[in-house]
Amino acid sequence: MDHLSMQNPVLATYVIAAALMVLKVMGQGWMTVYRMLKSNSGLASPEDLRPGLINRAPDPSQLALNDYVDRSRRMHRNDLENIPAFWVAGFLFVLIDPALWLAQTLLYGFVIARLAHFWAYATAQSHEIRATFYTVGSLIVIYMAAHTLVVALT
Amino acid sequence: MDHLSMQNPVLATYVIAAALMVLKVMGQGWMTVYRMLKSNSGLASPEDLRPGLINRAPDPSQLALNDYVDRSRRMHRNDLENIPAFWVAGFLFVLIDPALWLAQTLLYGFVIARLAHFWAYATAQSHEIRATFYTVGSLIVIYMAAHTLVVALT
Amino acid sequence: MDHLSMQNPVLATYVIAAALMVLKVMGQGWMTVYRMLKSNSGLASPEDLRPGLINRAPDPSQLALNDYVDRSRRMHRNDLENIPAFWVAGFLFVLIDPALWLAQTLLYGFVIARLAHFWAYATAQSHEIRATFYTVGSLIVIYMAAHTLVVALT
Repeated sequence: MDHLSMQNPVLATYVIAAALMVLKVMGQGWMTVYRMLKSNSGLASPEDLRPGLINRAPDPSQLALNDYVDRSRRMHRNDLENIPAFWVAGFLFVLIDPALWLAQTLLYGFVIARLAHFWAYATAQSHEIRATFYTVGSLIVIYMAAHTLVVALT
Repeated sequence: MDHLSMQNPVLATYVIAAALMVLKVMGQGWMTVYRMLKSNSGLASPEDLRPGLINRAPDPSQLALNDYVDRSRRMHRNDLENIPAFWVAGFLFVLIDPALWLAQTLLYGFVIARLAHFWAYATAQSHEIRATFYTVGSLIVIYMAAHTLVVALT
Repeated sequence: MDHLSMQNPVLATYVIAAALMVLKVMGQGWMTVYRMLKSNSGLASPEDLRPGLINRAPDPSQLALNDYVDRSRRMHRNDLENIPAFWVAGFLFVLIDPALWLAQTLLYGFVIARLAHFWAYATAQSHEIRATFYTVGSLIVIYMAAHTLVVALT
């Protein structure tokens, strides 16, 4: 069986986890848009102060940093620091043909850790709680890359 | 036919679109470098104030935010929020073997939307115009991920 | 031989280089965490000022920008501007079946250039030295994408 065929349950697991993380990252962009429109602030470019459909009553203070909007941007940055590395580490891991239970644990474990991190960040839980979910996700990516490296080098 | 062979026209479409987006992202880095050198400002690190080939007459004001340079950095950030997710969603989409016309529409559509977004951002078009191109690109990525997920789960 | 099998030495080269870069990016996140804990500053969210295991004696000044911590964040941002594009360009390059010596030179060359960039940035070397390593890495990614594009289009 071709390990890059959807018949391979390890690849199918990867495809599901990776697609869910695509939706997570893209959704984070829309959360920023929603918060920007709702609070009418946190704009990023000078031209956004021109009157228009998005901004009917512009005011220079709209360019100031706003934690409600910036929180979503920080969550997005944290995603970008973790999820692309997950996409690649997960794919490399599929290439070395791991046990299905291990792939499912790691790939779905990452998805759950990042959703929990999303919840902790969006609701401003304590640094300790947010850091715990970050750590679980990060260690999963590091484990998959290190495991792949060991197999590739031996 | 192997769906991950260049003989597969869906994969060839993906390879062309993904490679164009690699050049786009890397080019954005060089646009920042160009603007930094041309305006002699927008430097990011204290050590960049040491005299040298890049900076013959250093001045502390060079570390201040400069919209000409920062605009290119914001464009880059927007790229990073969209293009890596496109690379992955497009690849997952190839794995589920979609119709060629659909793959071409979505993959080349994304490339065109992002080039239009580049133009709108670089020339400071209104927020509405920039947001329109952002939305087209974003919906294409979301569609590919959701379509892949439905196929993988059924 | 299947070009996406680990028996293909070009793919094995890619897997090693890509996995090393995963460890580099994830390690950069931990370098930020380490510097944040060591200097007790550079926190990013208001809720990080709540007393807890990570922060026993909170002070509002901990939210101010701190170059020691921010340097690691800038290095991370620079990674994100280069490494995901490398992961994709390298993979596309494998798909067009390049000569092994060329693949090894480019893929391992990128890894070495980014490790040198890490050293130059972490130790605050001159802008010229940092820019040189950035340029080598960037040109390798651009070359792989352009080469792939030429092959895919002809």
